[in-house]
Amino acid sequence: MFRTETDSFGEIKVPNKCYWGAQTQRSLENFKIGTEKMPVVLIKALAIVKLAAARVNMQYKVLDNQIGNAICQAANEIINGQFNNEFPLVVWQTGSGTQTNMNINEVISNRAIEILGSKLGSKFPVHPNDHVNYGQSSNDTFPTAMHIAVVQQISKLLIPNLAELYKALESKVEEFKKIIKVGRTHLQDAIPLTLGQEFSGYAIQIKKGIERVKLALNDVYELAQGGTAVGTGLNAKKGFATDFVKEVVEITGMPFTSANNKFEALAANDALVELSGTLNTIAVSLMKIANDIRLLGSGPRCGINEIILPENEPGSSIMPGKVNPTQCEAVTMVCAQVMGNHVTITIAGSNGHLELNVFKPVIIYNVLQSIQLLADSSLNFAKKCIIDIKANRERINNLLDQSLMLVTILNTHIGYDNAAKIAKLAYDKGITLKEAAIKLSLVSAEEFDKIVKPEKMVNL
Amino acid sequence: MFRTETDSFGEIKVPNKCYWGAQTQRSLENFKIGTEKMPVVLIKALAIVKLAAARVNMQYKVLDNQIGNAICQAANEIINGQFNNEFPLVVWQTGSGTQTNMNINEVISNRAIEILGSKLGSKFPVHPNDHVNYGQSSNDTFPTAMHIAVVQQISKLLIPNLAELYKALESKVEEFKKIIKVGRTHLQDAIPLTLGQEFSGYAIQIKKGIERVKLALNDVYELAQGGTAVGTGLNAKKGFATDFVKEVVEITGMPFTSANNKFEALAANDALVELSGTLNTIAVSLMKIANDIRLLGSGPRCGINEIILPENEPGSSIMPGKVNPTQCEAVTMVCAQVMGNHVTITIAGSNGHLELNVFKPVIIYNVLQSIQLLADSSLNFAKKCIIDIKANRERINNLLDQSLMLVTILNTHIGYDNAAKIAKLAYDKGITLKEAAIKLSLVSAEEFDKIVKPEKMVNL
Amino acid sequence: MFRTETDSFGEIKVPNKCYWGAQTQRSLENFKIGTEKMPVVLIKALAIVKLAAARVNMQYKVLDNQIGNAICQAANEIINGQFNNEFPLVVWQTGSGTQTNMNINEVISNRAIEILGSKLGSKFPVHPNDHVNYGQSSNDTFPTAMHIAVVQQISKLLIPNLAELYKALESKVEEFKKIIKVGRTHLQDAIPLTLGQEFSGYAIQIKKGIERVKLALNDVYELAQGGTAVGTGLNAKKGFATDFVKEVVEITGMPFTSANNKFEALAANDALVELSGTLNTIAVSLMKIANDIRLLGSGPRCGINEIILPENEPGSSIMPGKVNPTQCEAVTMVCAQVMGNHVTITIAGSNGHLELNVFKPVIIYNVLQSIQLLADSSLNFAKKCIIDIKANRERINNLLDQSLMLVTILNTHIGYDNAAKIAKLAYDKGITLKEAAIKLSLVSAEEFDKIVKPEKMVNL
Amino acid sequence: MFRTETDSFGEIKVPNKCYWGAQTQRSLENFKIGTEKMPVVLIKALAIVKLAAARVNMQYKVLDNQIGNAICQAANEIINGQFNNEFPLVVWQTGSGTQTNMNINEVISNRAIEILGSKLGSKFPVHPNDHVNYGQSSNDTFPTAMHIAVVQQISKLLIPNLAELYKALESKVEEFKKIIKVGRTHLQDAIPLTLGQEFSGYAIQIKKGIERVKLALNDVYELAQGGTAVGTGLNAKKGFATDFVKEVVEITGMPFTSANNKFEALAANDALVELSGTLNTIAVSLMKIANDIRLLGSGPRCGINEIILPENEPGSSIMPGKVNPTQCEAVTMVCAQVMGNHVTITIAGSNGHLELNVFKPVIIYNVLQSIQLLADSSLNFAKKCIIDIKANRERINNLLDQSLMLVTILNTHIGYDNAAKIAKLAYDKGITLKEAAIKLSLVSAEEFDKIVKPEKMVNL
Repeated sequence: MFRTETDSFGEIKVPNKCYWGAQTQRSLENFKIGTEKMPVVLIKALAIVKLAAARVNMQYKVLDNQIGNAICQAANEIINGQFNNEFPLVVWQTGSGTQTNMNINEVISNRAIEILGSKLGSKFPVHPNDHVNYGQSSNDTFPTAMHIAVVQQISKLLIPNLAELYKALESKVEEFKKIIKVGRTHLQDAIPLTLGQEFSGYAIQIKKGIERVKLALNDVYELAQGGTAVGTGLNAKKGFATDFVKEVVEITGMPFTSANNKFEALAANDALVELSGTLNTIAVSLMKIANDIRLLGSGPRCGINEIILPENEPGSSIMPGKVNPTQCEAVTMVCAQVMGNHVTITIAGSNGHLELNVFKPVIIYNVLQSIQLLADSSLNFAKKCIIDIKANRERINNLLDQSLMLVTILNTHIGYDNAAKIAKLAYDKGITLKEAAIKLSLVSAEEFDKIVKPEKMVNL
Repeated sequence: MFRTETDSFGEIKVPNKCYWGAQTQRSLENFKIGTEKMPVVLIKALAIVKLAAARVNMQYKVLDNQIGNAICQAANEIINGQFNNEFPLVVWQTGSGTQTNMNINEVISNRAIEILGSKLGSKFPVHPNDHVNYGQSSNDTFPTAMHIAVVQQISKLLIPNLAELYKALESKVEEFKKIIKVGRTHLQDAIPLTLGQEFSGYAIQIKKGIERVKLALNDVYELAQGGTAVGTGLNAKKGFATDFVKEVVEITGMPFTSANNKFEALAANDALVELSGTLNTIAVSLMKIANDIRLLGSGPRCGINEIILPENEPGSSIMPGKVNPTQCEAVTMVCAQVMGNHVTITIAGSNGHLELNVFKPVIIYNVLQSIQLLADSSLNFAKKCIIDIKANRERINNLLDQSLMLVTILNTHIGYDNAAKIAKLAYDKGITLKEAAIKLSLVSAEEFDKIVKPEKMVNL
Repeated sequence: MFRTETDSFGEIKVPNKCYWGAQTQRSLENFKIGTEKMPVVLIKALAIVKLAAARVNMQYKVLDNQIGNAICQAANEIINGQFNNEFPLVVWQTGSGTQTNMNINEVISNRAIEILGSKLGSKFPVHPNDHVNYGQSSNDTFPTAMHIAVVQQISKLLIPNLAELYKALESKVEEFKKIIKVGRTHLQDAIPLTLGQEFSGYAIQIKKGIERVKLALNDVYELAQGGTAVGTGLNAKKGFATDFVKEVVEITGMPFTSANNKFEALAANDALVELSGTLNTIAVSLMKIANDIRLLGSGPRCGINEIILPENEPGSSIMPGKVNPTQCEAVTMVCAQVMGNHVTITIAGSNGHLELNVFKPVIIYNVLQSIQLLADSSLNFAKKCIIDIKANRERINNLLDQSLMLVTILNTHIGYDNAAKIAKLAYDKGITLKEAAIKLSLVSAEEFDKIVKPEKMVNL
Repeated sequence: MFRTETDSFGEIKVPNKCYWGAQTQRSLENFKIGTEKMPVVLIKALAIVKLAAARVNMQYKVLDNQIGNAICQAANEIINGQFNNEFPLVVWQTGSGTQTNMNINEVISNRAIEILGSKLGSKFPVHPNDHVNYGQSSNDTFPTAMHIAVVQQISKLLIPNLAELYKALESKVEEFKKIIKVGRTHLQDAIPLTLGQEFSGYAIQIKKGIERVKLALNDVYELAQGGTAVGTGLNAKKGFATDFVKEVVEITGMPFTSANNKFEALAANDALVELSGTLNTIAVSLMKIANDIRLLGSGPRCGINEIILPENEPGSSIMPGKVNPTQCEAVTMVCAQVMGNHVTITIAGSNGHLELNVFKPVIIYNVLQSIQLLADSSLNFAKKCIIDIKANRERINNLLDQSLMLVTILNTHIGYDNAAKIAKLAYDKGITLKEAAIKLSLVSAEEFDKIVKPEKMVNL
């Protein structure tokens, strides 16, 4: 059931069915902390690193072709998800991700050994360090994989899903563009705008979020690979950094570059801190939008109720017939999570020491969680809520008719102080603005009707 | 205009009119960062430290009585606010507060020199280090002063002001206790409660806040004094720590104790991190309360409008007659500040190194700001808002009559699924619950009237 | 393969092998967000709620005994972990946890139906709302389960593990109590202390952490149950709240109480925000301790190297023979996570609206993760690091001999200014303090030897 | 001593010597919270708004030239700092900044009245609302002023000061470029690099910080002006938004634009949240750099001590001759503050409601504080620390000679496992790598000397 694997600390038993080796096994025993595993997308990104490195090392003739090809096959199998169960390590391990780098070195070496017909655990003919890790260090492979994983998740998941949400909001901007309603500032009645204009603010927030995250990616395209242990590139061949990047560009189809300064690329994770800042802004935007939508949809009879949210499920285990803004709630919970994750990433990013930041696993775990949650909830929000929102025109009209702030348009006719007198009288007596205006002899009925028209106030 | 002061770095010019000396002057020149001065309450607490230390040192005969008495007089003058302008240093200085400790050592020594008729800057007969700082180090005086200042501000300012807010809320609980209104969960209409019950939740939040902050004070009563530079107490007399505390208790009337472990008391600031956690909870409570109150007061015609907030000022520079929930806004902004301050304090508290945490000034600056802001805004909120809130009974009754969730009481009579049918029909057709119930033949008109009574649902 | 389940929204297909019903299935389809499931400990706590409620409802004769007993059996099976796979819902759902409450209502009802020999999905003879949820609302069951889960995890996991860490640290305090070493403040050489004294600061931080978290539990013992939907307790029998708590106390053996104010218990989650503040303080303490230990163990040849950390695994994939402070790194990453989680919880806690805070799932997810991570990493840190730390006495002695800050003890003999001259001369010329003292004729060789003894400076 | 001013709430006494009017006075009495005043740079930015608006309104002939010119003169006087004392309001006021907008309306109107020879408080011939605020609302002037103030502080203060810091770091990169030293990862000895390379990482962090903040400014150039109360622009003339921006560009010389979507520009403050995210990243970078520098400078005899920091002041009130890394401490405290401010800004930014975010004052207070502190401390750090850092070559060489990680270069010669044996033996026996290599017969003395050369490992 067990075979013996060895590392520089000696022998250790590993389950026979597993491809991992001594150091993975040791880590399993040394870090019994939590249940949060290294994210699969990160493992696959590491496999891309191993694949690209093996290809370059074969070109350089420092890696035997037979060994190199077996490594490439094994790496591709991991990329294809065939070995997801072989990566059991938790986030809470060495701060450089060394144990996960060794995990993949071990799995690839054993799988390559198997391909080449030799014995698992023998390290022959494929050694995890000397071959799979050739010219590399955890200190450059791990941050390289972090950046690859983040770029992929942002490009393939977050941006498309935000774009879906933007599209859904834009469709409402169009649908609602002529519906004039009371505006609200400080949650108090204010001058009118259209429901479409209100939604246009939401749409633009998401649009800008997409632009911001694209900008923030610029620094994330830079890869640390080639710096090896401290940034000098010791034991990697001259030119490795740039040749490696070419391979990664080919494998992923994305515009990665080699980091200009490898010392910074290992010692700091500022690019991801900055990116997380942008995810935080997107969370801030989404929190605002989701909050507004549940406010506008509050009711059905004792709230604002200007919009009607889709009913997706029974809302209450005790109150029959209740429907709740559950999609808004999921979104705002996600936002709270992303904001907290950002603080974790900030603290982790600020605590690097000298040549290496050793909070890398917690940084990537949080960045990837934030991306996933924002992406999933944006799409869900679009499809299960936004797209089916309906305007409650009757309610909107009723409220608009009652608003006292239509008085504002009189400022330029009778001055702010006089307009204020009209509003106050109407409020105190519970009468209409027009009645108050006439009572105060400040505007005639005809003038009032001519001037105080909501449709002239909304800049259509 | 200038006199020459000296320290171990040599001579430096100091304005003649100032009592501070060489090290204060050097700090002024070395730290041109921001405008945030060391808080006056901290300076006064440091003066209490100097006063208590001088008294004990005189008892021990290690400080000449004439010198000691002059020191005590000078310290008392600082406590009385006579020298507020003599403490010009900013927060962004040495992380131990050494320069502020030297600032007060210098001011006291020069003032004592003056009292004793000698020449400012001569360090004779009163030396800032050898006499004023005798048996002390910045490393114990500064955290001691931090704790003294915090205890005073909490006891004299925060707790009384929270108590005022609690009292104001409780008066509303009483005033509103019979007003039945629609409840809202998920911002959607729910089963009824009384307005008094709603306010009772707010009141209890504040009451618990007071209890929590009292508990959190327990660790803050512990003083670091007597640890001197690293916790061993080198150069302080045996017994100094406890005799010192006796003096502080006498001076302040508050139950300070000597920290059991002086190593921890210098190296960490956990007691203040924990206290800040409690201030954070109070901010969370206040944010909830202020948010609710502006929601309930939203309107006047297009919002919930169940309560009427006092009008304190014109609300808008463009919309005449507008009144806004400005006190709620001030409170919620304060809450956001306190929550951010807590993160600053957390980061600062976690970054100590070995025998000393050197983020002490930024910690105390933020803790004191949080206390002041919470205290001031609680009192203001009580006096300028809560106490004058009125129930809008007509509106409350109108909304209650329309609510569909009164159906909930039928669960135990006809089951959840049947009750849901009634609510859905009423909503879809825009009819009353009673009409829907009869239409569905699930309850008779008589039964309905007997069972569905809001006053039976609120557990008065 | 599928059966038809129904709820007030109509029919829906559910896999035949599953016990869950219509609302769980709907939630699965409506919330495709992330991978974070509702924690199992929370599910088990909800099962305790259902068990206790059924018992009380049987006592009250509002629940048929046969049905009630089947419910109790099903609940007990969930508590025993037999149905862990029946709770597939994610955290990112309704903010009240309604869907998870319905999930357990459905699983229990179907399992009870099975026990009673009827047909899954028939809701007969056991209805998820009318029987399992009798006298309850998600709005009180969910926060009740949150408190039960937290109390259990704190009591059974966090406190015992912190106690282990404290014990390990205390053993080092004892072991190192006579080893005199240079102190360091501002990371610069300072006066001496013992290594045991240094560790005593760490030990006391953990001890106080245990005390703090015990205090913070006080409010968490209060249970919301009995408030039902908005705090009034509609549809629960009089006395239910207190009778329910008695059952929970019996089931769990822990001192739960009934919340005095049910309105606050639903509308706010302040007790957990406050508790999270304490978890945050513990994270601050652990960050300090773990940072110190890696600093003291830095080297082996080019760092401080006063202590030797256990070697648990190879440290580097490229640098042979390297050993790293990996346990410290896992701990500090956990601390960063807990600090960020605290911000998430703070934001979530502050965003309640009126009768209900609807960020409950994200709050409990983060609180439970923080507890688990702190508990696991504390134990791991104790066992895999602290307990095997060794003092490097030779290095410690060498460094102590060279320290210039031993000069401090001369302050009370020759004054601060003269002592400073000795230290500066020794530093500038690279000579010993004694040589400098003699050169400056400030102390004789004999006096120096008599006074400047580290063992007299550490207050043993 | 007092004159009577009026607003729509009635009469109120204002001190005769003050230019402010009724609403400012009311705010002073209604908001007795804290001591934090609205920042002067914001007031001056508001004056720019009033100046630009008056110019455009005169062009449009909606503002009489005589009145308009008096308004422009008054606004210019405020910009020049002549009325700094006339803005006494605190941050903790209306969340729209309405009271500060009215404060400047009142001061300008009274000053313009004075210029035109009329009576203060008469509102004639210059009315605060009808003339100074013509075509404006607090809801657009205040966020416009926020953006103007931020752009100016970033452009004139932060970027130049960061550039100074970058220059200072670059000078060290050059100075230290040939000094080979031991690298450290996980705080443990690692393979070598040059001190110049180490500093190049710091330099690039700052360089990227400058680039990031420039990118983040793009959205801040967009001005809300022209949206008036809810974004529709009611009461502003067509074209006002763009003509206004032209004036602001002329006045400031900076590339402001008009916000495409005025609804978003009032309702959200995402551009500043995003900018704060970048300030947070800069804080993360600075925290890393300052921490490293104090680590490298730790000692002088019992730490790493590879670099010598300038001595700026005595370090200790009790330890004579002590010098501390005080500039690093000031910088890291600033960083902690900026990180906390970012959380405040995030929370504030996420809590907008419908047409207006009402956390504007707390947002701008924190953003401006973060900018000022980062700017001041960067410059101070450059001038008082970085520029005078010296390499301690003797110490650096001694440490490098002892390092065991030079063994890494042997990997590609004898394999990782054999190299590990050499390192372990050398460590265990306290011998040199060369001695261990020979003892193990893995490399000959000649080979060792040929291969193991630090200067070949650093990629110069």
